[in-house]
Amino acid sequence: MTQISKYNLSEIASKLGLELIGDNLCQISGIGTLRNAVSGELSFLSNPSYRNQLEKTKASAVIIEERYAKFCPTNALISKNPYLSFADATHLFKPNFNRNIGIHESAVIAESACIDSTVSIGPNVIVEENASIARGSVIGPNCYIGEGVTVGEDCYLQNNVSLYYKVRLGDSVTIQSGSVIGADGFGFAFDGEKQIKIHQLGSVLLSDNVEIGACTTIDRGTIDDTIIGKGVKIDNQVQIGHNCKVGDHSIICGCVGIAGSVNIGKYCIMGGASGAVGHITISDKVNVSAMSLVSESILEPGTYSSGTWHMKTLDWKRSSIRFKQLDEMNKRVRQLERKFQSDDDEPSPY
Amino acid sequence: MTQISKYNLSEIASKLGLELIGDNLCQISGIGTLRNAVSGELSFLSNPSYRNQLEKTKASAVIIEERYAKFCPTNALISKNPYLSFADATHLFKPNFNRNIGIHESAVIAESACIDSTVSIGPNVIVEENASIARGSVIGPNCYIGEGVTVGEDCYLQNNVSLYYKVRLGDSVTIQSGSVIGADGFGFAFDGEKQIKIHQLGSVLLSDNVEIGACTTIDRGTIDDTIIGKGVKIDNQVQIGHNCKVGDHSIICGCVGIAGSVNIGKYCIMGGASGAVGHITISDKVNVSAMSLVSESILEPGTYSSGTWHMKTLDWKRSSIRFKQLDEMNKRVRQLERKFQSDDDEPSPY
Amino acid sequence: MTQISKYNLSEIASKLGLELIGDNLCQISGIGTLRNAVSGELSFLSNPSYRNQLEKTKASAVIIEERYAKFCPTNALISKNPYLSFADATHLFKPNFNRNIGIHESAVIAESACIDSTVSIGPNVIVEENASIARGSVIGPNCYIGEGVTVGEDCYLQNNVSLYYKVRLGDSVTIQSGSVIGADGFGFAFDGEKQIKIHQLGSVLLSDNVEIGACTTIDRGTIDDTIIGKGVKIDNQVQIGHNCKVGDHSIICGCVGIAGSVNIGKYCIMGGASGAVGHITISDKVNVSAMSLVSESILEPGTYSSGTWHMKTLDWKRSSIRFKQLDEMNKRVRQLERKFQSDDDEPSPY
Repeated sequence: MTQISKYNLSEIASKLGLELIGDNLCQISGIGTLRNAVSGELSFLSNPSYRNQLEKTKASAVIIEERYAKFCPTNALISKNPYLSFADATHLFKPNFNRNIGIHESAVIAESACIDSTVSIGPNVIVEENASIARGSVIGPNCYIGEGVTVGEDCYLQNNVSLYYKVRLGDSVTIQSGSVIGADGFGFAFDGEKQIKIHQLGSVLLSDNVEIGACTTIDRGTIDDTIIGKGVKIDNQVQIGHNCKVGDHSIICGCVGIAGSVNIGKYCIMGGASGAVGHITISDKVNVSAMSLVSESILEPGTYSSGTWHMKTLDWKRSSIRFKQLDEMNKRVRQLERKFQSDDDEPSPY
Repeated sequence: MTQISKYNLSEIASKLGLELIGDNLCQISGIGTLRNAVSGELSFLSNPSYRNQLEKTKASAVIIEERYAKFCPTNALISKNPYLSFADATHLFKPNFNRNIGIHESAVIAESACIDSTVSIGPNVIVEENASIARGSVIGPNCYIGEGVTVGEDCYLQNNVSLYYKVRLGDSVTIQSGSVIGADGFGFAFDGEKQIKIHQLGSVLLSDNVEIGACTTIDRGTIDDTIIGKGVKIDNQVQIGHNCKVGDHSIICGCVGIAGSVNIGKYCIMGGASGAVGHITISDKVNVSAMSLVSESILEPGTYSSGTWHMKTLDWKRSSIRFKQLDEMNKRVRQLERKFQSDDDEPSPY
Repeated sequence: MTQISKYNLSEIASKLGLELIGDNLCQISGIGTLRNAVSGELSFLSNPSYRNQLEKTKASAVIIEERYAKFCPTNALISKNPYLSFADATHLFKPNFNRNIGIHESAVIAESACIDSTVSIGPNVIVEENASIARGSVIGPNCYIGEGVTVGEDCYLQNNVSLYYKVRLGDSVTIQSGSVIGADGFGFAFDGEKQIKIHQLGSVLLSDNVEIGACTTIDRGTIDDTIIGKGVKIDNQVQIGHNCKVGDHSIICGCVGIAGSVNIGKYCIMGGASGAVGHITISDKVNVSAMSLVSESILEPGTYSSGTWHMKTLDWKRSSIRFKQLDEMNKRVRQLERKFQSDDDEPSPY
């Protein structure tokens, strides 16, 4: 992180593949929001609700759709998708840490472990027998790499990440602090008196370009593996049970809980704190709203919700009491309908 | 994990106490699902919905109820409870790691700590003053064992587990990575302007045969201890507040949140992401469905739920709007009833 | 924790600013609940539902409101707010650990880090370049202090806490084990095929007197910082998304999930496992009930709830089916109303 990245606008335009309207040589050394950017910073307008902040921005350049260019008080970078261009721009300004290539002297590495010479292993890392870590990967301080684990190329593990034995990571997998991959799935058989542990003999595969947040847990499979598909992004505090499959490019937001043996399709979005009960299927392109529970399989793409809106608690209590009486209320309505049914009415289906 | 376990079928039948129909000498070196097992693997049929996979299985033996034996295309092990027998079988094939008995040279052990000579202490473990760890226990890398902690016999702590001061573990307690036992309960008294911390002077007792998942937190009691009963199984990402008691052999699934001072009985099941508000009692043998909130005491065994089913979001919005008007709707129905009440009708109780 | 605190009652009365009725010299060496206290312990009566335990208590003294003093079977300390006085009393009996001032020999400290000579740094701590830690702070074992982090005075980090680069802590900030402050916010832009990471260039500020529980995650901002206000108390397993602001003295209970860019006011209480969707505002003095989801901005102080009460699952299923038909039921009621509308009725607004 020693040096600050600095570019002139024509470089940025070229790197992002955007048309520049304005000063080629303007120096940019960071990114700011429309509201808070200062001189020397690049901003962007994506969400139209921030449109009114454009005229007053002090940013030195703004990534913007063509139609808004005429309102831009400073240099403009024209993009068809300013949010995506902004994402690209963050890659230019991300901090560049000086990673020490090689193995920190305090790390404890098993002799049979196979670690590429370009790998960076931080202080107090433990790497167990027969683990292998491929080219360019970074293993942060205090990480635990279990026996027989394989880590692909260019993976990045922040500190205190735990990979249990035989967990496999593809290439370019990122894992934030405190996450635990491959802990025992939650499996017990009841013998009439107590719970007998089912040892979890499968493992976990995190495919290429998976990103895992902080304090997230993904359990190893009972027999077969738990599999997270390519490009899947998983936020913090997520729990994914044993034997689950998550399809390529799906997004799992924070605090989601997925029970065991759930099949989630590709390009799904599980909203924050949503969940799914075990042994069900969620097909491709399903969006589940925040804090909604999927309680049976969803086989059609679309957006799904459960729960109720928030209300003032006093009003909510009234509604909640009536919720408990809903079946009764339905009967009362049915009775009224029966009483006053005209001869030409359709019979009620309820 | 160096050698692979291998048994012949008559050994397995004898170890599991099952009748074998087939080849005594058939070699078994692993477990597979009916669908994916290969030659040399043992499978099982428990859930009838997998019945149709039986005839095509390539497993070399199947644990099965007697009534299905005639459909089994290979060797059969006859069990009254195939799922329980499968659980037993996993114990035969679980990986056997070569634990180094003794204390890793990088561990930091207080002089007054009392550690049995058969204990295995991994790299970078910290054991504080007056802690004691009994016969056969394993403390994984980077674990923190606070002052005055007692760990019973044959406990197993994976890496990065934190036990705060004075926490007590019975025998055969297992804790997965990243879990924190005995952190301060969440207690503050408001002085009209700011929150004053209530120091948490109790501790936590995990009784014999408790198993705790990954990234789970169990807070120490304010004055008395938080107590987890014998044989309780707790999954990942669970939060149990200060002063709770969880009765023997109860099961707490992933992402459950239990507020402070909750008494949960024996043989309960808290479903995934369910919760309980503080200062209530849940009696023995209560099952709470996934993502359901227990908002007052439950004194009768049975299954309980809250929330609503998932729906297409568009339909859900319509229902949700009406939910907000439910009390009003009840009044409208009541009004209709009053209007058209016959003389011989019972007056409506609503 | 070597010596046990011991006071006589007149000392305690003086330290807590309370009137003592009884024996000045009575020795007190701990705190107990009314029910479980033994001789030599101090108890308190705050919640009236424990009133009936007063007469039988074996405590040697009780903190109590004046009106109950005549029922107190032992020494009484008269308080207008016994719960607050109890909170103060816990400060007298909290364990006093012998902290070693200075840096443990196994810690890995960057040369450019600036650590006050009164700081205590535990075993295996990593402190990266240009981090600074001010007077009297304690950094527990296995903590990770990233590049450019600033830790104020008298902060207390239990073991295994992670502070990502540039995170800033005010004074007297406490963080329990396993928490992760400053991990990347969950931001991606979809390019039509895959998710492009938005590097998170902001940071996190934890203001003075913030307390963070165990296994809690607070993400760094995308551009601007995530800001936790003064005196905010956050429990275990909480997730706070990027760009959030939490106002001074608010309380966030366990398992809460706050999506990105949420503004929470001052003196709010987010109940256990409650949540908020992204990009909304919750104004000052809002209380959100346990497991309730805030799905749009709340601009008025008060108490808010969502969800439904728990019911026996069989009854709940009946209500849930009717919930799915609620809009239909409303139409049926409307139809009945239309059919039987008297000329003098107001037209129904539904």
